[in-house]
Amino acid sequence: MQNKKVAVILSGCGVFDGAEIYESTLVLLALDQAQVEYECLAPNIDQMHVINHLTGEEMPEKRNVLIEAARLARGQIKDLAEANPAEYSALIFPGGFGAAKNLSNFATQGADLSIQPDVLNFTQAIHQAGKPIGLICIAPAMAPKLIGPGTQCTIGTDAGVAQAIEQMGGQHVACEVGSFHIDEARKVVSTPAYMLAGRISEAAEGIQKLVQAVIKMM
Amino acid sequence: MQNKKVAVILSGCGVFDGAEIYESTLVLLALDQAQVEYECLAPNIDQMHVINHLTGEEMPEKRNVLIEAARLARGQIKDLAEANPAEYSALIFPGGFGAAKNLSNFATQGADLSIQPDVLNFTQAIHQAGKPIGLICIAPAMAPKLIGPGTQCTIGTDAGVAQAIEQMGGQHVACEVGSFHIDEARKVVSTPAYMLAGRISEAAEGIQKLVQAVIKMM
Repeated sequence: MQNKKVAVILSGCGVFDGAEIYESTLVLLALDQAQVEYECLAPNIDQMHVINHLTGEEMPEKRNVLIEAARLARGQIKDLAEANPAEYSALIFPGGFGAAKNLSNFATQGADLSIQPDVLNFTQAIHQAGKPIGLICIAPAMAPKLIGPGTQCTIGTDAGVAQAIEQMGGQHVACEVGSFHIDEARKVVSTPAYMLAGRISEAAEGIQKLVQAVIKMM
Repeated sequence: MQNKKVAVILSGCGVFDGAEIYESTLVLLALDQAQVEYECLAPNIDQMHVINHLTGEEMPEKRNVLIEAARLARGQIKDLAEANPAEYSALIFPGGFGAAKNLSNFATQGADLSIQPDVLNFTQAIHQAGKPIGLICIAPAMAPKLIGPGTQCTIGTDAGVAQAIEQMGGQHVACEVGSFHIDEARKVVSTPAYMLAGRISEAAEGIQKLVQAVIKMM
């Protein structure tokens, strides 16, 4: 896997307003255990809001997606706007509400979502170059707009999100927590993780398989 | 492992001002993969400060250790002051500067450190009940004050921290990144993790072994 590097796009740091921490960590662990180099990237924008993860309530604060995502990357992270897609062989999106609140506005707009421009440009460049893309948890809700109509993906079994994916022109495929789905034609891999997981080891199982599938297509 | 539950004390969320995120996640993963129940706890206090993890600079903000640690626990966390040590069979401290800035003041006081009172009371109750304690990364710097003089522990090979541990009456034992040290008499297990790790898989190896050793002594 020399000279192959995987981009991991983070959306903050914390399941309710940013990147899901366990999913992000498990992606990096699986890549490193497979001896594949990775680099974390995040858009340099304000979070939609800040959630107190103890109470679930909104806090009267502003936080920046790139700065908070840097916590998850131990400071080793790059502004997505400055990253060159040609340098990466694949792209993975961990989940967490940040994918639906910061990378896109799916949380508020549903099937009418739009994608943050840096995220859209980078991902389309990766896809158009024939490189594989992995999407975890709620991140596959972006797939039809990111990758195009007809894209197959899974968010597990949530009927509302599945319907929104179909409305956007995607094809939703039901999937169990420890498994994953591949759209072979488009090189898109997805796994439900914490859309269904009750335990961290369940999320780990699906993510390990997704990372292996992405690596295999690089 | 029915009716056995492990307490995991978090010190915030982010290596430079709180709990090291990968170490914390890897502890929970190893416990869950061993089918051992766990509960995250944190003191309900302000962080010493807030560090911008992108630049390394201090931010003009206040954050609360329990509220930020709740990010790492997906909201499933309890105020350490309200936790009953009798309900837990073991205790594990992930590392990160939060152990040296929030759980203790080792970062500023060195060998003259004092331990946050809720952390001290809870840990001493666990130790006095003959239950095992695991300490990761920089957290073993608290061991001589938390557990008592003569306690053996490792933070890897950092000469300055090792000297401070000896000054406090502890016994420092050098250790490689993927390994760990056990003080059998006191049931104290420690591993260097990100005191030495250059890669997440290296930290995972030592943490996996530490968790197994703690479980074995429960």
